[in-house]
This record gives sequence, structure tokens and C-alpha cells, in this order.
Amino acid sequence: MKTTLDCIPCLIRQAIEASRLVALEPCLQECFVRDVLRWTSEMDLDGPPPLLAQRIQRRLRELSRVEDPYRALKDQQNHLALGLLPELQRRLNAASDPLALAVRLAIAGNVIDLGVKGSLSESEVRQALEQAMTEVFVGDLEAFRQALAKAERILYLADNAGEIALDRLLIEHLGPARVTLAVRGAPVLNDATRVDARAVDLESRVKLIDNGSDAPGTLLEDCSASFRAEMAKADLILAKGQGNYETLSQVKGNLFFLFKVKCAVIADHAGVPMGAQVLVHAAAAHPEPYGVRA
Amino acid sequence: MKTTLDCIPCLIRQAIEASRLVALEPCLQECFVRDVLRWTSEMDLDGPPPLLAQRIQRRLRELSRVEDPYRALKDQQNHLALGLLPELQRRLNAASDPLALAVRLAIAGNVIDLGVKGSLSESEVRQALEQAMTEVFVGDLEAFRQALAKAERILYLADNAGEIALDRLLIEHLGPARVTLAVRGAPVLNDATRVDARAVDLESRVKLIDNGSDAPGTLLEDCSASFRAEMAKADLILAKGQGNYETLSQVKGNLFFLFKVKCAVIADHAGVPMGAQVLVHAAAAHPEPYGVRA
Repeated sequence: MKTTLDCIPCLIRQAIEASRLVALEPCLQECFVRDVLRWTSEMDLDGPPPLLAQRIQRRLRELSRVEDPYRALKDQQNHLALGLLPELQRRLNAASDPLALAVRLAIAGNVIDLGVKGSLSESEVRQALEQAMTEVFVGDLEAFRQALAKAERILYLADNAGEIALDRLLIEHLGPARVTLAVRGAPVLNDATRVDARAVDLESRVKLIDNGSDAPGTLLEDCSASFRAEMAKADLILAKGQGNYETLSQVKGNLFFLFKVKCAVIADHAGVPMGAQVLVHAAAAHPEPYGVRA
Repeated sequence: MKTTLDCIPCLIRQAIEASRLVALEPCLQECFVRDVLRWTSEMDLDGPPPLLAQRIQRRLRELSRVEDPYRALKDQQNHLALGLLPELQRRLNAASDPLALAVRLAIAGNVIDLGVKGSLSESEVRQALEQAMTEVFVGDLEAFRQALAKAERILYLADNAGEIALDRLLIEHLGPARVTLAVRGAPVLNDATRVDARAVDLESRVKLIDNGSDAPGTLLEDCSASFRAEMAKADLILAKGQGNYETLSQVKGNLFFLFKVKCAVIADHAGVPMGAQVLVHAAAAHPEPYGVRA
């Protein structure tokens, strides 16, 4: 999807908050924000929002000399979400429709997007998950169930740290033997990397790859050839989170998006209400499709 | 006060929303937003936020060829607030401390800052006013009462349309004969101008002046010499709203700010909680005072 004017103040706010996270020196911080504003004034709005976010976060890492600014937050998110797994697994075991619950939980994990909002307590995360269980759900679970029944090679595109622990529940339900899990190729925001897949004990359970890119989404032209080959080989792709939706909504393929609607721009683009949990096939999400190139 | 980095995304969001209010052609809208971003990337952060807002709104009026983009909204705000006056006047007449209530109502009027948020229903405005009656109040009402007892020439700096109807209740309580009411010199956002003072029937009750400026605040260097002379002659100045606080917080003089805290930057600068109603003397608000120049 394209970047809208409404994305701009949000991207700038995110940049400012990120600059605080690494405690950038005030003069460096001002220089950084001025760079961001200048780039934004000249940006190509035909690209998706993660394209600018990628550039912003690269510059922040460069100026701060911090390789992974969100590492401590991501560790905290993983730890919190991992602590919830035993109880959630018991609920899954007792559920009348475990797939429906596993999908809900995986999307709910997308709520624990601390992003740049600082820290959340365990009780806040529990509350967010409980609320997520009763939120509006938009999507065709039966079509998803049928797609899963036929799939032999599933590529699962992870989104954030913390959330990736809840992805583990869904992946285990799908059957890890047929799943390849893809994380980002390098740190960006609180997006999950190989470090996070290891932290939630997923590396030992599935084939783990990274996409070779430091964009907070899946910018195909920025991903590695080996990642694109995996994408072309998969007969079903599950893409988690808004960043993957923003970058892949025009891709043609057997791809389902699973995300929580956290902003009005996405709600408008996907035609779904704010706050909803969404499970939507790419065929229903792309006005101008283009193919996945290996 | 200076412009903080956190003011920037907010000013940009305000610009985008304002461009929708005048239904700017998409290509003009993009050009406008790119201008705003470029100016922001080069702006002097030592100036107060209304300095950039002034430039943005000027450019919008120029591109849209609409002299007063917020006119219809301001008319609606005035009409709504005027409709509430008889009932509020009855409550004032029955109040044990009418000054305290009139101050609360005048500050509460600052809540009806539709700004660029579109339209509010009468019931929403009533609800906002009722809530405002019980909100946290920060300020020294007794010092204000004593200052009023001594004042012979009161200069009252208005803020928004709609709100100005509730200012009328306070002005009538103060005694209109000693009050000069100042509005903005030209349209900017939903700030009150002479049109609004007339609409709420204040022109016939007080000496009405304008400040000669189209900034959403009181930028002294941009105000007319006659306005600055009025300011220098006054022995007590009441300044309504965040915009006046942002532009006058460093002015030395017998000046009270009356406003509702609507953003975290102001809360931080004034050392008061978000959402609070504030009545604060300039002596408590300026770390680096400078004098009022006539």
C-alpha cells in the first residue's frame, strides 16, 4: 500500500520516541529529526510506510551507534509472553475449536506491540489478551481452515518480539514440520529477528530463515534472493502484523494476513473497523496485484 | 515557550486536517504538506509553536483561496455555546462563589476547542462542560480574587470561538466597564476574531480591540503597536488558552493564564497534570522573563 499523508505525523512521532529510547544527545537528536523531516518532505508517497521507517531506523542506529536499540524491550516482551504460554496452551487444549483460538491468540499477540511505548506490566498484557478474545473478528476462518488442510509448505512471516511467542502456539497447532518461519534480517524497531525466535524456543521447532532486510515489513526488492525463493516455493504464506500487510498487500499469491488494526489508515485501506482482529486473504486485499519474484 | 520536538508531529497533523477542511485539491494538498515538512525541517525551535502554525495557516489560506477556513465551524461553536448561556447564568446567580464558578466555566469553554476535529453535538458540549466542573483545578483563586479587587484596567485576551461566549459570563462578573477584550487580528484556526465577539454579543458590552496579528496566540512582535500599548496600560491581563500561554509564558507583568491542559508538552512546561484546569500567574510561569514593550 502507498504511504498516506496521515502516515507522516505518525512516522515522525515514532522517530522522536525512538531517539529517546537510545538517549540520543540533544544536538544529535535535533539533527536526526531534521533529517527525518527533510526526507519526508521529499519522499515518494507511492512506496509503503515501512520504506521511510527503515531509513529512519537505519539513521538512528548510525547516529546512536546502538546496533539494536529495542533489544532490552524485546527481551522484556519475549519474557512476558513466554510466561503466559503454559496457561494459554491449557486453554487451547480444552478449546472446542483450537484453530480458531490459536488464530485469535496469534493476532492478539500483535496487541503486545510495545513499539516505542515503553514497558508493559504482565497484568496489562494479560488484560490486552483477554480483551482480544472478544474483539471484532473480520475474516473467513473456514477458507483459512481449508487452505491449511491442503498446504504442504507454509511460510510464516513473523512480526514483533513478544508476539512471536504466541505465534509458537499457532505454529505448533499447524504442525511445525511443514512450517518455515521467517524473521527480519536485522534489527528494526521491536520486530522479531533470529535472536527472538531463539528466545521463544522456536529455532529448534521449525525451519528458521531471515528475510535479509532491515525494513519493518517485507519489502520484496530489499529481501534476499534466498528468502524470495522460499516465498515462491511456499504453497501458503501467513503474514503477521501491519508492517507485513503494508508491504505485501499488493502481492499475488496464496497469502493470508493476520493482524490487529491499530491505525485508521490501515482500517480504511483494508475496509475493516479500528481495533478489529483481521484474517484476510491477499486476493481480497490487493487492488493492483503483482507476482512474487524469486 | 520554545517549540519542542513533540510539537512537530502535532503541528503537521493539524496542517493535514486543516487541508481537508478546505477540501484542497490532492496535488495542492501534497504540495502544501511538503512545504510544511520542509519549513519544519529548517525551523528555529527557539520560537513558540504558534509561530509555525501561523505560517502553515497563512499558506493554507493562500493555496485554498479561502479567507477564513474555520468560519462555518466557528459559527457552529458560537451558536452552541450561546444556547447554553441562560442555564449557565442561572447557575452562576445561585452559586455560593460566583467568581470561582465563572472562572471554571471560562476555562471549561477552552474544552470546546473543536479545532480541526470536526463538529460536536450540543449534548457532547454539555457533557464536556459538566465534566469540566469537577476536573482538577490548579491555581491560586484567592490571589486572582485579590488582583481583581485592585484592577482598574483589565485586558482580556480571548482564545477560541465558542469559548468566547463563556468568556462573556466571566467578563460580566468582572464588570465590563473596566474590561478591554482583545481578539485575533485576522482568521487563524478556530481562534476568535471580531466576528466572533459580535456573534456572542460582546462588542456592545466591552471595549473591543484586535491584536493585529494572525498568529494563534499573542506573538508580541507581530501584534500592532496599538495592541501593545493597550497591553502596557492594563494593570491586569487575563490570557485564555494554550496558544496565549505558549506565546506569553515568558512575559513579565500582572498576567494570569487561564487554560485547559490539552497536551503533554504544556503539562510538562507548566508542571501541571494533563486535563487540568489552570489559573496561573505569569510570575510562576516564566523562567526567563522579558518585559512587555509598548
